[in-house]
Amino acid sequence: MSPRHRNTSLGFAATAKQPGAKPRRDADARRTQDPAACELLEEAQARGITTAFDRFIAQQPQCGFGLDGVCCRVCLQGPCRINPRKAGMEKGICGAQDYTVVARNLARAIAGGTACHSDHGRHIAKVLLHVAEGEIGEENYRVSDPEKLRRIATRIGLETEGVAVADLARRVALAALADYGRHTDETCTWLTTTITPGRQTKFKHCAIAPTAIDRSITDIITQTAMGMDADPVNIIFGGLKTALSDYTGMHLSTDLSDVLFGTPTPVLSQANLGVIDPAYVNIATHGHNPTLSSLVVDAAQELAGEARQAGAKGVNVVGICCTGNELLMRDGVYLASNVAGQELAIMTGALDAMIVDIQCIMPSVRAVAECYHTAVIATNPLVKIPGAHHVDFREETALATAKEMVRLAIRSYGKRDPAKLRVSEHKQDVVAGWSLEALFELLGRIDADHPARVLTDAILEGEIRGVALFAGCNNLKVNHDQSHLAILKGLLANDVFVVATGCSAGAAAKAGLMAPGSYEEYGGEGLKKFLARLSQAGATRHGLPAVFHLGSCVDNTRAADLWTAMARELDVDVPKVPFVASAPEAMHEKAVSIGSWVVAMGIPTHVGIMPQIEGSELVYGVGTQIAHDVYGGYFILDPNPTTAVERLLDALEYRVWKLRVHRKAADRFGAALTAGY
Amino acid sequence: MSPRHRNTSLGFAATAKQPGAKPRRDADARRTQDPAACELLEEAQARGITTAFDRFIAQQPQCGFGLDGVCCRVCLQGPCRINPRKAGMEKGICGAQDYTVVARNLARAIAGGTACHSDHGRHIAKVLLHVAEGEIGEENYRVSDPEKLRRIATRIGLETEGVAVADLARRVALAALADYGRHTDETCTWLTTTITPGRQTKFKHCAIAPTAIDRSITDIITQTAMGMDADPVNIIFGGLKTALSDYTGMHLSTDLSDVLFGTPTPVLSQANLGVIDPAYVNIATHGHNPTLSSLVVDAAQELAGEARQAGAKGVNVVGICCTGNELLMRDGVYLASNVAGQELAIMTGALDAMIVDIQCIMPSVRAVAECYHTAVIATNPLVKIPGAHHVDFREETALATAKEMVRLAIRSYGKRDPAKLRVSEHKQDVVAGWSLEALFELLGRIDADHPARVLTDAILEGEIRGVALFAGCNNLKVNHDQSHLAILKGLLANDVFVVATGCSAGAAAKAGLMAPGSYEEYGGEGLKKFLARLSQAGATRHGLPAVFHLGSCVDNTRAADLWTAMARELDVDVPKVPFVASAPEAMHEKAVSIGSWVVAMGIPTHVGIMPQIEGSELVYGVGTQIAHDVYGGYFILDPNPTTAVERLLDALEYRVWKLRVHRKAADRFGAALTAGY
Repeated sequence: MSPRHRNTSLGFAATAKQPGAKPRRDADARRTQDPAACELLEEAQARGITTAFDRFIAQQPQCGFGLDGVCCRVCLQGPCRINPRKAGMEKGICGAQDYTVVARNLARAIAGGTACHSDHGRHIAKVLLHVAEGEIGEENYRVSDPEKLRRIATRIGLETEGVAVADLARRVALAALADYGRHTDETCTWLTTTITPGRQTKFKHCAIAPTAIDRSITDIITQTAMGMDADPVNIIFGGLKTALSDYTGMHLSTDLSDVLFGTPTPVLSQANLGVIDPAYVNIATHGHNPTLSSLVVDAAQELAGEARQAGAKGVNVVGICCTGNELLMRDGVYLASNVAGQELAIMTGALDAMIVDIQCIMPSVRAVAECYHTAVIATNPLVKIPGAHHVDFREETALATAKEMVRLAIRSYGKRDPAKLRVSEHKQDVVAGWSLEALFELLGRIDADHPARVLTDAILEGEIRGVALFAGCNNLKVNHDQSHLAILKGLLANDVFVVATGCSAGAAAKAGLMAPGSYEEYGGEGLKKFLARLSQAGATRHGLPAVFHLGSCVDNTRAADLWTAMARELDVDVPKVPFVASAPEAMHEKAVSIGSWVVAMGIPTHVGIMPQIEGSELVYGVGTQIAHDVYGGYFILDPNPTTAVERLLDALEYRVWKLRVHRKAADRFGAALTAGY
Repeated sequence: MSPRHRNTSLGFAATAKQPGAKPRRDADARRTQDPAACELLEEAQARGITTAFDRFIAQQPQCGFGLDGVCCRVCLQGPCRINPRKAGMEKGICGAQDYTVVARNLARAIAGGTACHSDHGRHIAKVLLHVAEGEIGEENYRVSDPEKLRRIATRIGLETEGVAVADLARRVALAALADYGRHTDETCTWLTTTITPGRQTKFKHCAIAPTAIDRSITDIITQTAMGMDADPVNIIFGGLKTALSDYTGMHLSTDLSDVLFGTPTPVLSQANLGVIDPAYVNIATHGHNPTLSSLVVDAAQELAGEARQAGAKGVNVVGICCTGNELLMRDGVYLASNVAGQELAIMTGALDAMIVDIQCIMPSVRAVAECYHTAVIATNPLVKIPGAHHVDFREETALATAKEMVRLAIRSYGKRDPAKLRVSEHKQDVVAGWSLEALFELLGRIDADHPARVLTDAILEGEIRGVALFAGCNNLKVNHDQSHLAILKGLLANDVFVVATGCSAGAAAKAGLMAPGSYEEYGGEGLKKFLARLSQAGATRHGLPAVFHLGSCVDNTRAADLWTAMARELDVDVPKVPFVASAPEAMHEKAVSIGSWVVAMGIPTHVGIMPQIEGSELVYGVGTQIAHDVYGGYFILDPNPTTAVERLLDALEYRVWKLRVHRKAADRFGAALTAGY
C-alpha cells in the first residue's frame, strides 16, 4: 500500500486555502465543534487576539519534507531533504535514504514521548519515596490508598505480610525507581508484571523488552544519531523498546498516583468553559501532574474565606488538559477545556490564575494573558515561560506553596476588567472517575469474581461488539474535537463499549457523552441493553455515561490492564481480544510513543492525523501491515472519521469472528486440541 | 551582536552556485586539501560513483529554516517554521518563539551527542565489569594498565590498598555504571573528581551538575518537548547539564579504555590513503569503539599465514575516523582517513573489508562497496546497514569473531578486480600516542614533579602563547580539511602548543603536521625553541611532531585534564588558563555536546561551521557573549580561518596578560590580597 493521505486534504487548512478564499477569521464551526470555543474564537477575533487557531493558518502551507518525515537534521552538515524522485536528492549527504530518515525521526519522537511520561512517573515515585521516608509532612502528601499499595506490592513480588504501610511504600517506590536505571539485564518490573505471558514471550523474542527506562531513551537517541543505524526495521524495533519503556513509566505513574492521591471512583462534575463562574475566584490548573494541583484544590477550600473577603463567592478550581482529567477523576473538579482551548479559557475574562505544571502548555497562554488580568504561574524547574510568574514548587512545602498561589489568584481577582468578561453558558454534566477498579466494581455487579468476563461474555453473545479506547490530543490540522466526536458516536451507535483518556475524554465530556444516562442517547440497542443491565444490577449513585472516562493520558495503561484482563478471561493473548484504540487528533510526541506500545501490545490502533512517515513506503508498510504479522496490532492511518469507524468496526468484527470460530472448534474437538490456535 | 554568518557564504557550495557556473565534478582542490582524496574524487567521477561530496552539492540550497534552527518538529501539529519577519509566522502554532525553538533544537542535539558518548562509555565499563567478574576470557580482554586502574580508583575515592586488580576493576566499573543511573542527588563521580573546585562551585551554583547520565538525557528530552520549557536560557542550562553528562561519559570511557587496552605512549605510524597497500589483505576498521577493532588487530597478526596462503603478503589493518585514532594511539595502526574520506578508501580497489562499529558510519559505504569487492561488516546491534554483512559481536567470543571477520576479508581479497585498483602514493609519517600521561612524561623531562608547570612557565615567559585543542569532524560545507589545516598552521606559526583529537587530528596527521620533527617546519620561533628544549631534555625515540595527537574524539577529556592541571599549577580556575579550543569542521551532534561542555568548563571555543542557532539573536548572544560572563568560556563562531586564528590568538593573549597582571600584583601586594582576582 502506498502512502495516500495528506493531512491538508482534509480539515480547515485546505478549505481556507481554496483559490480566492481568504481565510475567514469569524471563528465558526469549520474550526471547532465546541460551542464554547466557537464563541471565544469570535471574541478573539473581535479583540484582535491571536490564538493557535490563527497561527495554524499562518503556518500554511507546512513543509512537505517535514510532513513526510524526510527532513534530516541530525548533523551540522544538514539539513538534508530526501526526495526519491529527484536525482541526487534520493539520499542525504551521508547516504541515508528515505526509510532511514523517516524511521529515525519516528524513533526520536517516541523517545520524546517516553521522556515526558517517565519524567512524570519518576516524580510521583520520588514523592512516594519521600512520603514513606517521612521527609514530607502529612499535610502535603500521604498514602491515600494503602489497599492499592498492597495490591501493587503483591503483583511485583514484594512480601506484604506484616509490613507497615510506610515501609511497603518505600519498597514499592524503590522498585519503581529501579525500573529507571538498572544496569543488569532483567526486564523492567512494571512491564513484566502487568502483561500477558504471550506478550512477555513476544517482546523477549523480538529483543524489545527494556531493562531500564532512561537507558532505553539513551539507546534510541544514539541509535538514531548520524552514522549509526541505517536499517529502518532495526530502528523501529529500537523505537518499540523505547515505547515499552513509555508503557512502564506510565503504568507506574498511574499506580503510584492512585496510591498517593486515591484510586478514582465515580464522581459527578461538569465540563466546558461554562464552568468558569465569574462569581468566584477562578483558578485553572493546567498540565499533567496532579502533585501540585491536588494541593491547589485543598488550598482553595481552605482559603474560601479570604476569597469571600475579596468579594467573591469562593474559589473555583477548574482543570485544563490532563491535570484537569486527574482532578476530575479524583476530586470531581470541573474540566474547563481540553488542550486546544487553553488560550480560550483566559479569554473568558474571568480566569484569575492559570497554574501550569508540565507538558502541553502552549507558551502563548502568557501572550494571551497579557491582554487580561490572568496570572500565569509556572511551577516546574523544566517549564519556565518568559514573562510568567515562576513559583518553585517543592513537595516538602507543597500546601504552603499552593496557598501562596491561591492568594495570588485572589489578588488577581481584584484586577478583573468587567468589560472583558465573556462568560460562556456551555457546560455539560459528566460522570467521571472510572479507574479500572471502579469499572470492575460496576461490571462486578453481574459477576463479582470475573468482572472482565461480563464484558467478554457480552461481546461473544453479540450484545456489544467490542471495546474501544479513545486517547490522544487535539490537533488543529483538523476541526477541533470533530474527529473525536464523529468516531466516538459512530462506535457507540454500533454497540462498542468505549473508554477514553486525555483530551479525547475531554472532547467527550464537553459534548455530553459522559453525562449521566447519555448512553441512552448515543448507544446502539445492544450497548444500551448492556449498560442498562449494569445500571440495574446495583445501586447507582450516578447514571452511567456513554463514554467511560478512564483518566488522563498517562492513564492509558488502565486500558492496557483492561485488555490484559480480557485476554486472561478469554484465555488468549491480546491480539485476539476484541479491543481497538483510536487517537483521532494525535498531536504530542507522547501520542506517538503511546500508539507504538499499544500496537506492540497487539491492538489495532487508529490515528486520525497522518504521522510523519509518508516519505517512506517501507516504514508506512511496517506500521500498517508488517506490525500486524509480528505483534498482532497495527496502525489504521485514516483522517476520515467515517471510514475510520468502518475500519475499527471491521477490526473488532474480525477478532470476534475468530474467537467464535475458536470456541466452536473447542466445543467440538476439546480445548486441548485447539489451544494456541 | 546580530547573526552574520551563513555557511554558504564560504566553501564550495557558494562557489559552485555562482550564476552560470555549473558545479564541476572534476574533484579538485576546491573540495579537499587532501591530495589522496583529490585523486580518488577524480576516480569517482571517472567511474560515475556518487560520494558525499556530490550529495552535498545535490542538497543545495539547504533549507534556511533548518540552517537557522527555527524549524520545529516536536509535535504532529507541525512542522512549524518560525519567521520573525513575517506576520503570523513569528511564532509556531503553540506560540513558541524563535528563541524557544532554536534553544530546543540545540539542546536536543546536545542530547544526541551525549547519548552517543555515554553509550560508548557504558559499553567499555560493562566490558571491564565482565572482565573483572571473570565472564570474559583473557584471550579477549584483560586489565592492561593496572597502574592507571589504581590511579583512577584513588581519584574516585576507593580503597586500593591490598585490593586485588580484578576486585578493584569490578569496583571501578560499578562506580562508572553508577554514574549512569543513580536515583539520589549526588553529582556524577567522574565529573566531581576530575574538575577544579572552582568549576564544581560554578556548576553547583548554576544547578547544572548532573546526578546521572541517562537521566540527564531523559530530562532534556522532556524539557524540550511540546508544551514544556519556553525559556531559552533555562533550556540552555538544561542543555549544559546534559553536556556535563557528556563529559562524564567521555571521561570514564577514556579512563576505562586505557585500563583495558593500555594507556597510549608515543608510537610511529603513517597516515592517509597511501597506507592501503595492495600487496596485503587490507581491512579498514571504522567507527569509534576500540573493543572490537583492537581484537581485529590481534586476529590479523594471528592469521597472517592464511593471508599469505591466499597470495597476499599478510594482513594490513588500517583505521578510519576514531576507531582509527584509537588503534593508531595504542598500536601504531595506520590511519587511512578521517570521516569525510571513508567512501574513498573503498575506491582504492584494494580494501578487502571494512569493519564498522558505531557512529559516523555513512550508510553510503555499502552503496560504494557494491561497485567493488569490499565486504562491509557491521557489528553492533544498534548499527545495521541494509545489504551489509552483520556479525553480532559479543565480548565473550570477541577474538573468535574477529578471526571470522579477518577470514572473510581474506576471502574477499581473492575477489579483487585489478582493473579497479587506484592505489594512492600519499601518506605521511606520524608520531602519535600522546595520552596525557605520555605528554606529562615528555614535559616531566624538564620538571618531573610539575609537568604542567613546564607549559605554564613557558607561557608566562612568552616562549609559547598558550595551548589549543583541535577537535571535531569533517563537514563538507567547507573544503575538506582546509579549515583544520589553515587554523592549525596559523596557531603553530604563532607559537601555540597544539593538541588534537578525532578527525581534526586525522587532518593534521594526513598533512604531515604530526610527522617526527614537523614542529621545525610549522612552529614559530618560540614553539620551536620550546619543543627543541623538550626534545633535548631526554632520550627521544621519535622526533616530536608539530601537533600532538591526543586520541579519538571521545578522548577530549584528556585535554580537559590538561587544562585542569594547568589551572592547578597556576592556582586559578580554568577560565584564566591560556587555553583555547577549535572545531573547524564540526559536524556530528557529538561536536555540539563537546563544544558545550568545553565552553562550560571555561574555554574560548571556536567553531568553523555555523551551528543552527542564527534564527535567534538571543541564543546566539548567549553562546557568544553571556556564556563568557557566566562560565568564562564562550563560542567564537567564525567560518573564516584567517579571522579565526586572530580571534583565538586574541583570547590567549588576553588570558596571558591577565595572568601577568595578577602575578605582578601578587608580587607587590602579596598573594593573599590578590587571591580570587
